[in-house]
Amino acid sequence: MSTTKIRIAIDCMGGDIGVPVTVSAAWDFAQRYPDTGFLLAGDEAAIRGQLKTLGCGRDDWYQVLPASEVVLMDDPVEVALRRKKDSSMRVAVQAVKDGLADACVSSGNTGAWMAISRYVLKMLDGIDRPAIATSIPNQKGGATTMLDLGANVDCTAEHLLQFAIMGTALATALNGRDKPTVGLLNIGEEVIKGNEVVKQAAELLRASGLNFYGNVEGDDICKGTVDVIVCDGFVGNVVLKSIEGVAKMISTMMRAEFKRNAFTMLSGLVAMPVLNRLRGKVDNRRYNGAALLGLRGIVIKSHGSADPYAYGHALLRAREAVHNGLLEGTTSAIHNLRQSLQAAAEQSAKISNDISGPGH
Amino acid sequence: MSTTKIRIAIDCMGGDIGVPVTVSAAWDFAQRYPDTGFLLAGDEAAIRGQLKTLGCGRDDWYQVLPASEVVLMDDPVEVALRRKKDSSMRVAVQAVKDGLADACVSSGNTGAWMAISRYVLKMLDGIDRPAIATSIPNQKGGATTMLDLGANVDCTAEHLLQFAIMGTALATALNGRDKPTVGLLNIGEEVIKGNEVVKQAAELLRASGLNFYGNVEGDDICKGTVDVIVCDGFVGNVVLKSIEGVAKMISTMMRAEFKRNAFTMLSGLVAMPVLNRLRGKVDNRRYNGAALLGLRGIVIKSHGSADPYAYGHALLRAREAVHNGLLEGTTSAIHNLRQSLQAAAEQSAKISNDISGPGH
Repeated sequence: MSTTKIRIAIDCMGGDIGVPVTVSAAWDFAQRYPDTGFLLAGDEAAIRGQLKTLGCGRDDWYQVLPASEVVLMDDPVEVALRRKKDSSMRVAVQAVKDGLADACVSSGNTGAWMAISRYVLKMLDGIDRPAIATSIPNQKGGATTMLDLGANVDCTAEHLLQFAIMGTALATALNGRDKPTVGLLNIGEEVIKGNEVVKQAAELLRASGLNFYGNVEGDDICKGTVDVIVCDGFVGNVVLKSIEGVAKMISTMMRAEFKRNAFTMLSGLVAMPVLNRLRGKVDNRRYNGAALLGLRGIVIKSHGSADPYAYGHALLRAREAVHNGLLEGTTSAIHNLRQSLQAAAEQSAKISNDISGPGH
Repeated sequence: MSTTKIRIAIDCMGGDIGVPVTVSAAWDFAQRYPDTGFLLAGDEAAIRGQLKTLGCGRDDWYQVLPASEVVLMDDPVEVALRRKKDSSMRVAVQAVKDGLADACVSSGNTGAWMAISRYVLKMLDGIDRPAIATSIPNQKGGATTMLDLGANVDCTAEHLLQFAIMGTALATALNGRDKPTVGLLNIGEEVIKGNEVVKQAAELLRASGLNFYGNVEGDDICKGTVDVIVCDGFVGNVVLKSIEGVAKMISTMMRAEFKRNAFTMLSGLVAMPVLNRLRGKVDNRRYNGAALLGLRGIVIKSHGSADPYAYGHALLRAREAVHNGLLEGTTSAIHNLRQSLQAAAEQSAKISNDISGPGH
């Protein structure tokens, strides 16, 4: 472990499968990225058993952090937070808090992971609430960063502004965007354009110094109109799942069409290489790894159903976030925002002073 | 016109193209459905010119309703409503109000169409606000009815209940569902499950006597878990456009993959019949024709970009809504709901009386 530059703590017990996925993905990752080491939190016997099964002969890339409890998928947040104080989740987050790890990853219960991370790490100055962000593949061949995806159901305009700051920092760190464009998710030509919160948020964003594009609509997510899209967690969660649902429907229906008879099966065989290439491009396993933003540490959430390939992508997101300085980027973005807002306030004070004239 | 049983008024000037689409679609429809006649509202010369171009020799299926003005796509609602009192939209809705037509259809400015319909026809008793509903193809080979899609941005729990009543009546009339199941769009396993409005709406729906399934998530839209999904207009609008966006992205990317080189083009040719069959199934032109619900008349909105094929489907929705008694269904659903709620209130009064005992 002494030679690795980046260290990621893993909740090895999380997800539908647990160690066979998490430990396998970590070992595979360590071989591909020799600069990255892992802190494996969980049941020590299970972890060492899995390492043996994998035939992993080296021990220079990991350290086991024993944890006696496991947060279950249906554990209430209260139970996860107050009763299971030696859970693999808690131990993984604590490693970040203690400076042993640079980031942590779990594929367990989202609510518990969020609550424990927030409790242990605390929020960054200037951010009220954490947000969940992910990348969605778009038509331009890139990815659209979208947040919030379910951490915050009722949001104020200020929260949406904070999401925009965090999303900007994330898109810069993960997708290498310089001054990423930010869109505010809104409704279009219909009767009433947006609710009050969204209207206020647009005003804040215009004054923020961020690269604010303006309102965007649902179809702009996949068009790739902007780099970052902000919305409240209710809308984001429903939209993300709707998108996953339609992609799944199309792929299921396509499979059924190709299986209809001998002729269609044959044409399916011919078309398969092309369709597989397409599937590779929109494969949601490649986009696995949502970021829990606004915390004093890098926290990544993998899908519970992730296989080792998908889990590896969540680990990659953690590594990139560390490597590209996501936390520093977020902190400096908050700082810049404050300066922008202060400058705007001083400017307007000066104007009002000039108008009042020297007599006052 | 005297022999036709169902009469549909059309705003012939609406949409990106106008008469070449609307009048052509009507003539085609009249030939396929001899029981249906049309009231063609708009510029008389343009309409008659188009009928001539089409080589339409019969005049027993239509009547022209001259209108001197046209509501433009970017006209503010105020202008459409107060200044253009002889618009083709207004004339088409007025025909329904006057009992000359059983339904009306426009592919023009949604906000204006909604405002004019509401102003002329008024709301049904028991419904506070109109809602926009459409059908989305699902994995089961059917369609999910979804509302509201943008008419109401901030909704109360009572509004969501009213959407459920109207959606139930629509799914019964258009999709022939007996006691269609109703789902309430909500977020899933994430930190906070739903906002206050959604929680209250679930309680109202449980007591409503409707076939309430419970909460559903974004991916249930395309899974076809329920027949009707209700949500506020902001969420519905964003979700619908997101779904359209991802479907478009997949089809664009697929075309690009098949065009990459000679081999992929050849395999595309082989696979084309199968892919075309799939496209036919999810072709959104077949789902054209949103219903504006809650009004004292049947009002259908077509996409502005509809071609004659798509516009024909909007006309079909209007005809089916008339034929299957959508208005009567909605009115009786409202009546049944009142009885359910009253019975529930009497029941609880009786229980409270029994508890209090005969001494009181």
